[in-house]
Formats: sequence, structure tokens, C-alpha cells
Amino acid sequence: MTVQGYNPRTGQPYGDPLPVTSDTEVDRLCEAAHSAHLAWSGWTAEARARVLDLVADRLDGESDALIAVADAETALGVPRLTTELKRTTNQLRMFADVLREGSYVDAMIDSPNTDIIPPRPDVRRVLRPLGVIAVFSASNFPFALSTVGSDTASALAAGCSVVVKGHSAHPNTTHETGRVVTAALSEGGAPDGLFSVVYGTQSGIRLVQHPVVKAAGFTGSIGGGRALYDLANSRPDPIPFYGELGSVNPTVVLPAAAAERPSEIAAGFAQSVTMGVGQFCTNPGLVFAPSSIVDELGKAVTDSTGGAMLNERMCDSYRSAVDTLSDSDLVSLVATGSAPGDAWAGKPALFSVPLETFEANLEKLTEENFGPSALVVTYSDVADVLPVLSRLPGTLTGTVHAQPSENSDAAAVADELRKIAGRLIYNGWPTGIALAWAMQHGGPWPATTNASHTSIGVPGIYRWLAPVTYQTWPDELLPPELQNDNPLGITRRRDGVLGKH
Amino acid sequence: MTVQGYNPRTGQPYGDPLPVTSDTEVDRLCEAAHSAHLAWSGWTAEARARVLDLVADRLDGESDALIAVADAETALGVPRLTTELKRTTNQLRMFADVLREGSYVDAMIDSPNTDIIPPRPDVRRVLRPLGVIAVFSASNFPFALSTVGSDTASALAAGCSVVVKGHSAHPNTTHETGRVVTAALSEGGAPDGLFSVVYGTQSGIRLVQHPVVKAAGFTGSIGGGRALYDLANSRPDPIPFYGELGSVNPTVVLPAAAAERPSEIAAGFAQSVTMGVGQFCTNPGLVFAPSSIVDELGKAVTDSTGGAMLNERMCDSYRSAVDTLSDSDLVSLVATGSAPGDAWAGKPALFSVPLETFEANLEKLTEENFGPSALVVTYSDVADVLPVLSRLPGTLTGTVHAQPSENSDAAAVADELRKIAGRLIYNGWPTGIALAWAMQHGGPWPATTNASHTSIGVPGIYRWLAPVTYQTWPDELLPPELQNDNPLGITRRRDGVLGKH
Repeated sequence: MTVQGYNPRTGQPYGDPLPVTSDTEVDRLCEAAHSAHLAWSGWTAEARARVLDLVADRLDGESDALIAVADAETALGVPRLTTELKRTTNQLRMFADVLREGSYVDAMIDSPNTDIIPPRPDVRRVLRPLGVIAVFSASNFPFALSTVGSDTASALAAGCSVVVKGHSAHPNTTHETGRVVTAALSEGGAPDGLFSVVYGTQSGIRLVQHPVVKAAGFTGSIGGGRALYDLANSRPDPIPFYGELGSVNPTVVLPAAAAERPSEIAAGFAQSVTMGVGQFCTNPGLVFAPSSIVDELGKAVTDSTGGAMLNERMCDSYRSAVDTLSDSDLVSLVATGSAPGDAWAGKPALFSVPLETFEANLEKLTEENFGPSALVVTYSDVADVLPVLSRLPGTLTGTVHAQPSENSDAAAVADELRKIAGRLIYNGWPTGIALAWAMQHGGPWPATTNASHTSIGVPGIYRWLAPVTYQTWPDELLPPELQNDNPLGITRRRDGVLGKH
Repeated sequence: MTVQGYNPRTGQPYGDPLPVTSDTEVDRLCEAAHSAHLAWSGWTAEARARVLDLVADRLDGESDALIAVADAETALGVPRLTTELKRTTNQLRMFADVLREGSYVDAMIDSPNTDIIPPRPDVRRVLRPLGVIAVFSASNFPFALSTVGSDTASALAAGCSVVVKGHSAHPNTTHETGRVVTAALSEGGAPDGLFSVVYGTQSGIRLVQHPVVKAAGFTGSIGGGRALYDLANSRPDPIPFYGELGSVNPTVVLPAAAAERPSEIAAGFAQSVTMGVGQFCTNPGLVFAPSSIVDELGKAVTDSTGGAMLNERMCDSYRSAVDTLSDSDLVSLVATGSAPGDAWAGKPALFSVPLETFEANLEKLTEENFGPSALVVTYSDVADVLPVLSRLPGTLTGTVHAQPSENSDAAAVADELRKIAGRLIYNGWPTGIALAWAMQHGGPWPATTNASHTSIGVPGIYRWLAPVTYQTWPDELLPPELQNDNPLGITRRRDGVLGKH
């Protein structure tokens, strides 16, 4: 059994086939990762930060070779992949900075008080790494959400070890990235087995059920994610499975914005919906807009260009969904863009439907179509849109386009969108995700398996940590984060108040 | 169909039977809770705090009546129930204080920066309430972990609404408590339907599967918790199910402590293991100790007194487990305590087993026996104990008794215990849980369904919150927690740094 890479531009095999990982080997790697975690979790935050920085530097140092392989295997193009690799290494550096700042451990100290009910002894709480993390890499970001993407970076930063299930859409990119990461970890003195990669569907199934694996991160389809989620939950000892699955990313264009900035909105929309051939989790696939702007949106889509999609199955599935919509009596085809001669090309497409028809067929018309297509739902009165928004499936993002004069409507839209979305954008587009503390990349099912967590941004690290409370321990036996004189100089919550105390 | 309360001291019915809640009524209460949440989540934190304080005051005002009913139905005794009710009202006040302090919303603000890859727009993140929460109340704390216990208090504080599945072991206590809470909420002007109670097993099954219910909290048995957990996860849209299930709470008595403080340790142990007739999740059911202290532990258990257990099934199950252990060739019966003449009395019991035998039968001998019994595992060398500790099932607590001279051994024990436990106690006992930010009441499965969360203590509120990020929004449309001039004066993380800015 092997995994074979392909060139989406030609549809031909790319690179040598890689052997799928046997159950025995998965087990061996998990055990090695378990041992490595025990050592790694004892490293200081500063020491782990140095290793993350080193991994970032070594990836940057081999960027030309990595980007060339990724471009051959994903057809995402050198400019995009250059930015994406830089984003990936900056993501590692961001977590290194978070480790150095140190307050991510959420240290809390409460003084004893015997005069209250119940009496309180000295209690001190700090976050500790969970153990071995299974990372299921995504197809659509071969660097930033893959082998050493946000799940891996945040897990290593947390003090966990990682076994990555490589995505079948870019096995050579995975292999080459893995080689650089493993060498850099070794150069930095990290314990053997801290990071490894497995290949093949069965290896992922084994991984999520392995006793030493304590949590999993996943970015991919609803079907694949649900199957692994169910496996994680049906273990004798269930583990958290943090999946980012599917999202329709509704956008509401308010009337004045549509009237006053039609070309700007149409251009922004077309660029966002075709970015990466529409293979973004945050692709704006559903637009509520006055019918007056539909022609302008259509023109922008007509002028847009698609490209080779990530793999044959994704391309087939996209084309089939577009065909089904084109044949449907429910929606109208507004425009299609052009497509290059690539083997697995996806062509941009825009459909429209009146609000009443959409509402009556909501479930059918809100299935995510992964690729450069969108559906415009035309409305006359924004008051009619509001009650529909909260009926949409959970989504990563929700967007509003408004003129200042209609800000009260924008606020009303936001009030509805925040019931179903993790990130709200005002006069922008949802594609493109900042690396920041304040980033939320998550949302109610099926956007993610748990809306309280994020898979991108600093707080993603909290998926891999769990609190431990020390009660009445001698100061010298406490972890430094909890010792009286705060040797690490971190911000802590002491008797309920945050400060460097 | 009805739910009937019983008096555990007599085994006779207590109070009138309460009707079980029909599916139709569960649905109605869920829908009402959903509407109530939409209103309540728009209240200011200060306004919610005032209502929580009012509920606490009204419960205190009716304490005599509530305690009388609870004592008749649980046999836990007036002194314990008096303390427990006060703990429950102080828990409500603690969350009111948390709301007033305000930083629990984890507000984060990151400034725009277009000079980095990826470029960062203005992003601002705040926690928002999830919606309707299903609370499955516990049998063993008829106030503190029941109708208006830690799950309900933290969920209401978060801005969620609550539907409580009342426990069948104390329906009249539930009913009376619910009556006081509902009246107080109404007096405080809270929206109708914010809080309600349902009765009967089927109502809980319906509740955890209802579309508007967004998360559940549970304290109870592994079997019951697992069944509901599986239902929550098998929904078309799975919801987080935060269960606190079962715990053996290992204690390690180090040699010098055993030699120098045998009577003190034995007295503390007997008090802890028989507290509440052993019906504590944190009951120290497994003690690793030198054989020299076993006689002293046995004497303390001989002098101890059991009492009526919470219900007939719990009593039967406890007695049967004690009988099985007594008949077992693996362990020796060291001592039994006395038992009063109550109908459903549980008698304290202490068993012992050598470390080697324990290790060889670890799975069988680590099943939680809910009641006032414990197993002493005798060892000669603490080095032999260390590798056994991390093989124990996940547990809420782990305890060490040590003299200062053996602190390095205590640290080594803690290093193992923290792999399996959420709270580590030094020279104390695990029963009795402080209400504090720094409290962790959780641990790896089967202690809880998710070790990253706690069901007691301030951070329990995070189970009911999810982040939403606002990207490039006009300041005046942002929630006050995120506005530039920080009108609430709360501590926020701004460009990665915590402060009142």
C-alpha cells in the first residue's frame, strides 16, 4: 500500500509513491511520542521557544525547495505558497513569543481563608500539556494547516508531542516538510519522537484510537471529520477531537453599501471567492444582497479565473455540485468565470435565488460547495434577512458590508450572525486570517466540533492544555509559575486579580 | 409516571410523588429557555450579578425549610446541609463578584499591522454565552451540585439559560429549591423561562438531544454519564457534554510521615473517607502506605461510624462491592466501622493488598466503590509505587503525606500524579473543595469527560462561553468589553499584554 502524489495541473503522478504506515509503526511512533512528551514537557518555556524559532529558521532556509514541491503537488502557485510558508514560520515564531511572555499558562493563586464557607486552603492552578496530540493535516493549506501548521505549532509550544497524519493530497510536501522539521528538532536537542508523520487512512484511524493519544486536531471535510470525531468519542476513554469541518460564511451587503460601492464590493467579492481556487474554509459562499448588485457581482465573476483544484476528487465534487445547481429549478446561474487548461480545473460560478425560495429550501441551499462558487440570495428588506441568519448552519465567519448611515442595521445583522459564527467582519472579506491572540477560527457545528475553541491564533494552544491545582504545597516544590516570588515574572491571577504578582 | 422521594433513614416514601415531565413539556421549557437566553445574554454583567445575589439571599432566607426537606430526603444531616446550602449561596455570590470584576470575558484586542505576513487587521475577541445549558444534578450534594449548584450558577452567570434535570434521589429538595430560585429570578426581573426543572430519566434523554440545548453539565456515575455523553455526541450537531463521573483519589503516605504521624494521618483519613457516608467524588478510596501504618488506619476505621446512604440502589451497590471484596482472595479485610440502624446504612470498611498483588490486578482493584470504604496498598519502597501511579485511571485528586525530609520523594510522586489527576494535595485530604479561581475539579477520563475543564471553581464558567472575534468594526458598534476606551474598566489582553487598557 502506498500514497501517490499528483500534479493537479496535469493529472499525472508526481514523485515516488510513499508507503502507508503500518499499525505496528503507528504504535511505535505513538509510544515514542509519549516518551518524548514526558521529556519535552519538562523543558522551560524559553527552551521550547528556541526550538520553535530554529524550526522556523530551517524551514525558511529550505523554502525554495519546499515551495517547488508544494506547487507541483497543489498547483496553488509560487506567490501564494511563498506567503503561506512565511505565514507558517511566523506562526511558529508567534508561539515562541507566547512562550517567552509566559502568561498563557493561566497561573492562578488563591490565598487561604478559614473565615469563609467553605474554608479555602492555599490553592494554585497552572495549565499543563496533555500528552501526545494527533494532528490531521488539511489539503488546502499545505504548509499553514498541514505538517507543521497551526495544530502542530500550538501543540509543540504547549509541551505536547505530535504525530501528524499526512494529507494524501500532498504527500511529497508532507515528507519534505517533515524531514526539515525532524532535522531542526534534532539540531535543537528536542527528544527523539517528539514529532513524526504517518500516511494512509488506516494510520489516522489507528492514531485517533491509540491509548497514549490525548487529543486530536483536524481540518477537513464534515464527512471525514465526523467519522474521526465519532471514533475519538467511542474510545473506552474518549478524547477531545477538535475538528474544523465546513462553513458557508454568509455575507450581508446592506442596501446603501450595494448602491454606493457596487464595483468595490463586487471586486472584493470575486477576489475572495476565487482565492486559492475557492479552496478556503472561509470562502464567502453565501451572499445576501439587494438584486441591484447582482449584475455587478456577475460581471466580476465573469472576469475571474479559476484554476487547478487540489485533487481529482475535490474537482469532481465541485464540478458535480455546480452542475446540480445549474440544472436546479431553485436557483439561476448568473455568471461563470474562465478556467485554464489544467487537468483538474475549477471554474468560478455565481448563482442567485430570491430570499423566499432560499428560506423554503434552506437546508439544501446551505450545503458547502468547496470551490470558487457562491450563491447570492436577493432581498428587498433587510428585516426579512435577519430571522433567516440565525437559521443558517454554524459557520466560521459572518460578514457585513454597510455604509455608516446603516450602522444600526449592521449591528442588527451582527447580533444575528454572532449566534452562528465565530468571527464577524465589517466591510471586509473573510478569507485571510490574522495570527493573533484575538483571532477566533471556530464556530458552532458544523464549522467546528466545539465552538469554545479555535484552531488558528494564539488561543489554539488551550486545546492541548489542562489545569492542575496544587493545594497547600511547600513553595519550593511548586512549578516556578506558581511559586510565591513569581520567578518567571509572568502575569498571574492572584486572589482573583490579574497582575505581575 | 411519577418520581417519588424516600427517607433513607426509614426506607419509606417521603412527600408526594412528582409527575415526570412529558416530552412536550421538555420541548416547551427548552424553547422558553432559548428565548430567555436571548434576553438575558443582553443584560449587563452587573445586572446579572444583582440577580445572582438576590437568588442567594432568597435561598438563605428559606434555609430552614430547605434544609429540613433535604435532610429528610438525603439523611446527610442538618449540620452538613447547613454548610452545604451556605456554600451554594456563596457560590452564587462568587460568580456575581466575578461578573462585577469583569475580566472573565477574556477580552483581547490586536492592533492592525500591514507590515507582517500575514497582515493583521484590527481584531477583537470576547467570550459570549452559548445558549441553553442542560444541567444534570448530582445525588450527593443536594444543594451545591444540584438544582442551583455550580453548573447552574456558572451557566446563569455566563449569560446562559438553564434547564435542570432533577435528581431522583431528592425530588422534593429539587422542587422546593426550584420554587425559591424561580421566585427570586422573577423578583429580580429575569426573563421567564431562564431556569426550569424537569423530572424523570426520559426528560434528561430528551433534554440532551434538544436542538436549542448547546451544552450539558453532569455530575454522577460513569455509566449514566457515558450514556448521556454518547447521546450528546451522536446528535446531528454534537454538543459538549461536561461530565464529572468517577474517581479513586489515590493518596500516597510516605515512610517518614507514616512513622512520625501515624495517629494524625489515620484520624484524618478516617474522617475524610467517611465524610458524607463516603458519598464524595473526592473520597480517598485508594491509599498507598507502608504496612506499618495499616493497624493505625484500621483502628481509626473501627472507631468510625457510617450512616444512611442516599438511596437504596447506592446502598445495595456499596454493600455488594464490600461483600465482593470481603470474599476476595486478593485483598484482606482490615477493619469495619459501625453502622446505625438506618434502613439504607453503609458501614465503613478498610481493605489491604500488597503492592505486587495490586499491580497484577490493577483494573479490577481500581473500580470506584462509592461509599465509605478504602483499599490500602502496602509498599516497602516508594520507588516501586511511582510507576504504578501513572497507570491508575484518571482521577479528580491525588494526595501526598510527607515529612519535610522526604520532599524530594513527594515531588516525584506529584510528577506521576499530575499525569492522572486534576488536583494535588500535600499533607491534607481531598474531600472539601474551595470556591476559587485556582480550583480544578476535573481530571482525565473517567474523572471527567474533558480534563481541560472544571465543574467547580470560577473557571467552570468557561464551559458555557465561546469566543467571537470582531474584525475592523466601528468602535461604537462593538460590545463595551472591546471598545477602545475600555468603558467597563476591565483587564484585557491588548497586543498580547494583559492590563487595564
